[in-house]
Amino acid sequence: MSLKSKGSNAERALVKMFWGSGWAAMRAAGSGSTHFPSPDVLAANKIRRIAIESKATKDTRKYFPDEEIKQLRDFADYFGAEPWLAIKFDGIAWVFVNPEDLKKTKEANVFSVDDIPLRGLSFEELIQTTS
Amino acid sequence: MSLKSKGSNAERALVKMFWGSGWAAMRAAGSGSTHFPSPDVLAANKIRRIAIESKATKDTRKYFPDEEIKQLRDFADYFGAEPWLAIKFDGIAWVFVNPEDLKKTKEANVFSVDDIPLRGLSFEELIQTTS
Repeated sequence: MSLKSKGSNAERALVKMFWGSGWAAMRAAGSGSTHFPSPDVLAANKIRRIAIESKATKDTRKYFPDEEIKQLRDFADYFGAEPWLAIKFDGIAWVFVNPEDLKKTKEANVFSVDDIPLRGLSFEELIQTTS
Repeated sequence: MSLKSKGSNAERALVKMFWGSGWAAMRAAGSGSTHFPSPDVLAANKIRRIAIESKATKDTRKYFPDEEIKQLRDFADYFGAEPWLAIKFDGIAWVFVNPEDLKKTKEANVFSVDDIPLRGLSFEELIQTTS
């Protein structure tokens, strides 16, 4: 499976999880089609709105370039949404991370499997959190 | 140009209009990829959220099947957004219509060019309206 279709399948799984919990969610059209910032998935209920950058990886850590984080924050700020990262490590349930809780490297931001206990939220924790 | 790419271009034009007015907006991924309801475009600022079904037509009237309207309302209800239709008639600026203001036919709902003065909003009116 290509990286692109793997990413799309991960996004569809996220969308399904939100609908299954009484939220509405949708995937964004391919980001190549626009020069405006856009998250991968947008989810909301009557109270909260969540803009998500989602990644599936076979590695034990995931890097996010500064620009990717900036675009997520920009979109969330204009839209009135909370910015979140959703990471699917192989064999582990989805982890949700506040961009502020990434570790900063020189030109990127990283979250590793070891960070999950202290700084990762499960899906259930995410949708119960009030920001 | 295919009907599909014509629709995509219309959606991109809408997204650009919202960003140009200080709103955030995004296009949804192809609706064929999911069985969950999804609008064509979602736009929001810190106060309002708008779920849009958008259509471009060369005709002087546009029909919306009942099911399409129902899905738009369902999504908007779960998401906490206002449902709107955006119609681009040839040679006329975008018109925004509240689903309640469509005329009901047997199995569809119609809005014609003649309805614009009484029941259509311009883009500027839409983003100034408070629901």
